[in-house]
Amino acid sequence: CISTLDSIFPKHENFANRHNGPSVEQRKKMLETLGVESIDDLINKTVPQQIRLDKDLDLQDSVCENEILDRLNLIAKQNRCDWRSFIGMGYYNCCVPRTIVRNMLENPGWSTPYTPYQPELAQGRLESLINYQTMVVDMTGLDIANASLLDEATAAAEAVSLCFRHNKRRKFYVDEKINPQALEVVRTRAGLIGIEIFVEKLERMDFSCRDFSGVLIQYPDTEGRVFDFSDVIEDAHTHGSLVACSTDLLALALIKSPGELGCDIALGSSQRFGVPLNYGGPHAAFFAVRNEFKRLMPGRMVGVTRDVHGKKVYRLALQTREQHIRRAKATSNICTAQALLANMSAMFAVHGPQGIKHLANRVHNAALLLAHGIHKAGHFLVHSNFFDTIMVHMTSGVHDIYRRSGEKKINLRIYNGGRIGVALDETVHEHDLDDLLYVFGFPQKMASVNVVYQTGGKITRETDYLTHPIFHKYRSETNIVRYMKKLENKDVSLVHSMIPLGSCTMKLNATAEMEPISWREFANIHPFVPMDQARGYEELLKELDRDLCEITGYDSICFQPNSGAQGEFTGLAAIKAYHKSIGQHQRSVCLIPTLCTRHTNPASAQMCGMKVVPVKVDKSGSVDVVDLQRLAHKYSDNLSAIMLTYPSTNGVFEEDIRETCDMIHDLGGQVYVDGANMNAQVGLCRPGDYGSDVSHLNLHKTFCIPHGGAGGPGMGPNWGEGSTWYPSLPTHPVVPPHGSILPHAKPTGSPWGSACILPISWTYIKLMGPKGLKEASEIAILNANYMAQRLKGHYDILFTGKNGFVAHEFIIDTRGFEATSGVEAVDIAKRLQDYGFHAPTMSWPVTNTLMIEPTESEDKDELDRFCDALISIRNEIKEVEEGKVDRELNMLKLAPHTLETISADQWDRPYTRTQAAFPLPYLKPDAKMWPATGRIDDAYGDKNLVCTCPPMDDYHEDDD
Amino acid sequence: CISTLDSIFPKHENFANRHNGPSVEQRKKMLETLGVESIDDLINKTVPQQIRLDKDLDLQDSVCENEILDRLNLIAKQNRCDWRSFIGMGYYNCCVPRTIVRNMLENPGWSTPYTPYQPELAQGRLESLINYQTMVVDMTGLDIANASLLDEATAAAEAVSLCFRHNKRRKFYVDEKINPQALEVVRTRAGLIGIEIFVEKLERMDFSCRDFSGVLIQYPDTEGRVFDFSDVIEDAHTHGSLVACSTDLLALALIKSPGELGCDIALGSSQRFGVPLNYGGPHAAFFAVRNEFKRLMPGRMVGVTRDVHGKKVYRLALQTREQHIRRAKATSNICTAQALLANMSAMFAVHGPQGIKHLANRVHNAALLLAHGIHKAGHFLVHSNFFDTIMVHMTSGVHDIYRRSGEKKINLRIYNGGRIGVALDETVHEHDLDDLLYVFGFPQKMASVNVVYQTGGKITRETDYLTHPIFHKYRSETNIVRYMKKLENKDVSLVHSMIPLGSCTMKLNATAEMEPISWREFANIHPFVPMDQARGYEELLKELDRDLCEITGYDSICFQPNSGAQGEFTGLAAIKAYHKSIGQHQRSVCLIPTLCTRHTNPASAQMCGMKVVPVKVDKSGSVDVVDLQRLAHKYSDNLSAIMLTYPSTNGVFEEDIRETCDMIHDLGGQVYVDGANMNAQVGLCRPGDYGSDVSHLNLHKTFCIPHGGAGGPGMGPNWGEGSTWYPSLPTHPVVPPHGSILPHAKPTGSPWGSACILPISWTYIKLMGPKGLKEASEIAILNANYMAQRLKGHYDILFTGKNGFVAHEFIIDTRGFEATSGVEAVDIAKRLQDYGFHAPTMSWPVTNTLMIEPTESEDKDELDRFCDALISIRNEIKEVEEGKVDRELNMLKLAPHTLETISADQWDRPYTRTQAAFPLPYLKPDAKMWPATGRIDDAYGDKNLVCTCPPMDDYHEDDD
Repeated sequence: CISTLDSIFPKHENFANRHNGPSVEQRKKMLETLGVESIDDLINKTVPQQIRLDKDLDLQDSVCENEILDRLNLIAKQNRCDWRSFIGMGYYNCCVPRTIVRNMLENPGWSTPYTPYQPELAQGRLESLINYQTMVVDMTGLDIANASLLDEATAAAEAVSLCFRHNKRRKFYVDEKINPQALEVVRTRAGLIGIEIFVEKLERMDFSCRDFSGVLIQYPDTEGRVFDFSDVIEDAHTHGSLVACSTDLLALALIKSPGELGCDIALGSSQRFGVPLNYGGPHAAFFAVRNEFKRLMPGRMVGVTRDVHGKKVYRLALQTREQHIRRAKATSNICTAQALLANMSAMFAVHGPQGIKHLANRVHNAALLLAHGIHKAGHFLVHSNFFDTIMVHMTSGVHDIYRRSGEKKINLRIYNGGRIGVALDETVHEHDLDDLLYVFGFPQKMASVNVVYQTGGKITRETDYLTHPIFHKYRSETNIVRYMKKLENKDVSLVHSMIPLGSCTMKLNATAEMEPISWREFANIHPFVPMDQARGYEELLKELDRDLCEITGYDSICFQPNSGAQGEFTGLAAIKAYHKSIGQHQRSVCLIPTLCTRHTNPASAQMCGMKVVPVKVDKSGSVDVVDLQRLAHKYSDNLSAIMLTYPSTNGVFEEDIRETCDMIHDLGGQVYVDGANMNAQVGLCRPGDYGSDVSHLNLHKTFCIPHGGAGGPGMGPNWGEGSTWYPSLPTHPVVPPHGSILPHAKPTGSPWGSACILPISWTYIKLMGPKGLKEASEIAILNANYMAQRLKGHYDILFTGKNGFVAHEFIIDTRGFEATSGVEAVDIAKRLQDYGFHAPTMSWPVTNTLMIEPTESEDKDELDRFCDALISIRNEIKEVEEGKVDRELNMLKLAPHTLETISADQWDRPYTRTQAAFPLPYLKPDAKMWPATGRIDDAYGDKNLVCTCPPMDDYHEDDD
Repeated sequence: CISTLDSIFPKHENFANRHNGPSVEQRKKMLETLGVESIDDLINKTVPQQIRLDKDLDLQDSVCENEILDRLNLIAKQNRCDWRSFIGMGYYNCCVPRTIVRNMLENPGWSTPYTPYQPELAQGRLESLINYQTMVVDMTGLDIANASLLDEATAAAEAVSLCFRHNKRRKFYVDEKINPQALEVVRTRAGLIGIEIFVEKLERMDFSCRDFSGVLIQYPDTEGRVFDFSDVIEDAHTHGSLVACSTDLLALALIKSPGELGCDIALGSSQRFGVPLNYGGPHAAFFAVRNEFKRLMPGRMVGVTRDVHGKKVYRLALQTREQHIRRAKATSNICTAQALLANMSAMFAVHGPQGIKHLANRVHNAALLLAHGIHKAGHFLVHSNFFDTIMVHMTSGVHDIYRRSGEKKINLRIYNGGRIGVALDETVHEHDLDDLLYVFGFPQKMASVNVVYQTGGKITRETDYLTHPIFHKYRSETNIVRYMKKLENKDVSLVHSMIPLGSCTMKLNATAEMEPISWREFANIHPFVPMDQARGYEELLKELDRDLCEITGYDSICFQPNSGAQGEFTGLAAIKAYHKSIGQHQRSVCLIPTLCTRHTNPASAQMCGMKVVPVKVDKSGSVDVVDLQRLAHKYSDNLSAIMLTYPSTNGVFEEDIRETCDMIHDLGGQVYVDGANMNAQVGLCRPGDYGSDVSHLNLHKTFCIPHGGAGGPGMGPNWGEGSTWYPSLPTHPVVPPHGSILPHAKPTGSPWGSACILPISWTYIKLMGPKGLKEASEIAILNANYMAQRLKGHYDILFTGKNGFVAHEFIIDTRGFEATSGVEAVDIAKRLQDYGFHAPTMSWPVTNTLMIEPTESEDKDELDRFCDALISIRNEIKEVEEGKVDRELNMLKLAPHTLETISADQWDRPYTRTQAAFPLPYLKPDAKMWPATGRIDDAYGDKNLVCTCPPMDDYHEDDD
């Protein structure tokens, strides 16, 4: 019932009007341009009638931002961040430098850029990520590190895969003293690709049969023990097995690094370097290897190369990797990096090695003091060598300890058999130790304990780390802030201009959505606290679960996958488990159209042990129905699934999606619809309605989680239609589920993946309401069609639907220019930088084309500027085609133009500075975004791979 | 007692190491350069031994940032922001757009710039401020507005002063229905300069004797009544009296504007346009006048002018005003503007007029509904015409209403005589109305009330507002964010480089200090809530009071002044009251050295009705002792006070400060030490110890409140030594004091001034601890002396102490260059922009010189870059002196060089582009900060005064 006040005067604030770009007047003009009568008319001509949702979404009406934040604040307060957690297990309290939170995490300049595919516009975060890699290399003592993975547990699984890729052996040892959540993920991942995991005590491992691919050891182990395992390493190496070490960056400040001990791989979480607990995520995992394995390394890696002027610059190294080369043979589907979190950790490290060493020493000494007290209290310490974690064996009185810890609001780790763990961290103060001693029944205060400071014994670290000047020159807050700002200002993000990356949905990440993630009640919760301390999260997850089910037409949801690719993997694993549960073990064929949404599709299928069979795509960009029918029937006995993207990656709502789904079902297969293009569907149609069984959603695309500078932090929750067929669901190894289902497979370490960023999507849905969400989809489609219409006379639009309209994205065909002018898609992309714009998605899904997705958040003015730029570039190409301009010495081939070039004393190009830098009137010197470097030489960098900070004299911006 | 853990390993985090710039190694090198052995040695040679503080400050040891924020969080929670306040009186709840909070208030790019004295580096916030002025002009219907004043009450007092300046009449009418706090401020201010205030009913005012300067009317009045007072205006005008109107911007969206009614002046608070309640401050007050009074307008005003290239640009208009021209005759000491808050309101207005009109309509209709219900409940509505505020006369049952409002946690306004006020606002929802009706004993829900929407009757507004395109084109959040970012990126702030403005102390404003001010528990409290709802503020104020007393050596403190100038005024008023209280009414002479800290000193004395007598300054820059003695004795019978700055504005710790104070005391005078230079003294010496009686402190200088883009939000608390002599202290007209003393005079409207920014200073002191604070003073002195030493061979340092050292700032003498090369200080200042730096304070306190204050937050590298720049400029001057370069066509006279100039196709200057834009190696194209315009033509702008948004075709950055 509408209230009296609202009926007289509706609330003013309609968030959809702020989220959606074009004004009412602009929409009218755009519809006129398209020659359609109304938005409804456009949608009717675009989205097939037979799959249209025939009702309004059953969601709460939109609520204005202050009100919804008030409500979320009440929900958040149910999370008990007044309890102290000394649980450890890879998650630690830490003093998160507030200036990093504010100037990076909370700053859209850092949170809204995309993966640095255009390195000329991304030197800032590339520099920060290479700082991160250097930090990891230094701490682990290995040769080369990547720019982060999703979490410690998935990094462990990636290590197993790497070993397998290296020596093809199908047995793998795991130290029994590894964190349980990591073990489960390793088991899940290995099991699906036929690698047998042997959990064993270190001293009982036997490599002599040369059939073990490798071993994964945790150091310090899950019980806190620090130990020398170089003999195991020697034994493994002798027999051709690799050694991976799951480790702790802070401990490595004091104890010998994995590299020094002889490990091949080191991995772990960099959370405790300046990132909040976040109830389990997002954080950045690190991964480092010896040089000889660098080309097997999963994930993204930043490397040094040179630009066309010979200047040292950064870019993503070895881009042509795993999923691109091996496709269906890939064994890793890693796509995103946790860039924003890695950058936070990197900036934490920029504070310098002295600080980190001091922190480590203090934590270690706190642990020594505590151990001393616990020992004096009459308890038995299981291990005598430890860094920050103590395991106590209680002969009696366990119950009293539970009671007293509750009294003091302290969470401890509870092992089996009366053993209790305490993991300390840098936030621990004297009074915490006093409280802990009280919990353990020690009558005195810490101050009366007399203990001698001990060193780490024979595995004390003696090597330096963080010796590069970058870790020394920005110590003061003034300098750190300026450094962060300098890097930020080199990068294009959504605060500058549209980033129309096709299939990436770079839409508004509104402040109201972002604010809650840094509230202490969401940020400062350990993922393994008892459920009654996280009731706020429970309520939020339940509501988000319900809302997303309504939006997609599915029945249940799992929040554990922490990226889109993880969502794919989890979904396919669920399909596999389903078939197994009904006795159809043999079903293992996965059909995937050749123009799939992402390179991750076949890789995910491969990771689930499926056989990937490609399906042809016809000239209109749709799945070739004849080929599909042929293959589906050919493999019908073994058909497990088809992976589709809808609307298609080519930017078209295919008419026969429902028939396709029906056919697969008739043959006993399951349908997986990739949720990457959900932004065109919300409120208009639902995968669950037209026949899909499982999807993942990229919450960082459609549901407003920012991309964080490199496709992360991502969330890829995962739906299964019909919980009836869901196999029995194991719980998390550490905590029971709440609010949402848990997956059959165990994709990641924390129970709800990157839980801390879920408030973003929750808030977005509440702010928009059912009307606003539907409108967003409509405007996304309107914007794409308007751009396509404006560009039509200048570029060919590669695929359209039956009425000539595109979905929410479209491809412009630039393939013909090579013959007529020598211009390739990459030249257009680089030239767009001179026009102040980030290029669309390049050469994907069709080589040498550009795919444009404007999203609903851009208004007509911005769309027009972008179209004007592309049209102007087309005219520049024409001049080459007509022979007026040289095929090599032209503005396209020499793009982008840096400020250094434009302001140089000498100018010897066959065009003017103005033509180069200010080709259109909207470009003004006082507001232009400049590329920081000239065009980048990728091949040089890959040939001369350098993935750590270069020598200081290569730092161009500094005088010293 | 030191804890065991801390004694073994002290906490790592030492905030002073992050706040203070130079590293240990850098400090060593700097001391070497100075030829002193240690910091102690330097301080001993700089600060006179006889005034040195001989003990450590008795303050809490430093606490790390996460810990202190945890503690402050507990304090904050004692503020009851769960209560709803419908009190009104100029302070309203509002939906503060979160994206403005995050991207402006919480963004150091917006909070840390200084007053835009260098407009070429400040076009961003100047544009935003002109949007603010345009918004004020539009809403009030007047011709010209300033860039904000401190609060509504001081704006009202300024209106009285303006009328007096205009017609010199000494009687003034104030409508009896004005907010009580404004009335008190007007009384205080008028009383001190001999203007008689007559509080009267409108209908009983009589202007016929032509002896009334003007009248101040509140519209809608403090009881909520909306009425037509054009007959009063006509009557006043007929008899030469002016009419000032205190008004409400939101109400003006629906009712006739003061300008349309015929007022000469309109003023009020723009708080409810997107700024939180902040427990009373900071907010921006607005002030607008008819054209004929523009040169009498107090405060800062942004105007349009042209730069050397003829481009339309912004700068502070009519800079040579009041305090500069009239000095001791000035009647306003307004110096700062609440720029950051004005910018928030401006960006709120950028959302467009439709939204504002809608808000106003909704609020008004909520009030109509409520009034209807209250009427039905049997209560009497005192006024039938209102906008958002209802006054209810209770015949009985007042006590029940109190009880029920407590039950519902609702604050109402309580008038005398059983009358109760309810002020609604844009946040009000149906359930609030239901609760209010319950409070008033109405048994039904709002939904059952049937009311017809009413318009405002004959004073309904029929004119448009916010018609300029700037209020229409940035509606979506994407666009607003990009607009804020574009403006931010034009301006130099502390996130780019040092801003060594002498006497302005542009030091680090750390994130940990800034975070609490946007916590809801501090931001969402009405200043007039009952004291028991603000216990958090009480605790904070008490602690800050104690800490600041310890730091200054004073006995008590008052937090009400909301700027440094207000602090001066309050302090001098206290001295005056003191003399009065001991029967020495005749004491009214205020001695002020001619080189005073600020132009505000004599203005403040003037405002207190004191006679300003200037004292000479000797060649060494110190007060001329002979002249001082002569004047002090000459005026000994009437001597009220001396105003001193210590260390002096010339950058010297004068040796005989104690003797000077003693002499004044011996003659019966009081000593006022301006606290502007407190940053050189904390922990080293205390004004209260060496003889000062009263000071103000600029919390936005020494105690880390950011300058907010134009010297605001400022805080100037005010001390009095010896509460024994303090005259009896009246309480605030609305609420009783808590935590701190209230002033005898009533300087501002809210009880604790800009209360919401006090957590910044509280946190700074706690983070630094006594050692860190002292070290900050020492490093501030070290940094200044290091720079002076490096510059010595190149420029003359104007004043030094007896050992040849300066204090925390110093003056370089550039007066000689005019003769030798034609170069003036302004040329050096503009040329510094090409070197990426904001100029030091120019031509103050000595004309044609530059005063440099580096502060402790800058490290040696930055100091060196700045010195390198100045030395390089000195060499450029030399080339002119030597005739190698033309006296007009040179890099200094043509500075600054914009990117437009540097990137132009044509270059016809007698030096290269590189020499112009990149004269030193530290300047790199990919990180340089560019001036947005060429040198500005101030005279042109003052001659052709335009202080609202220029036509759209002058917006250079847009193509449409």
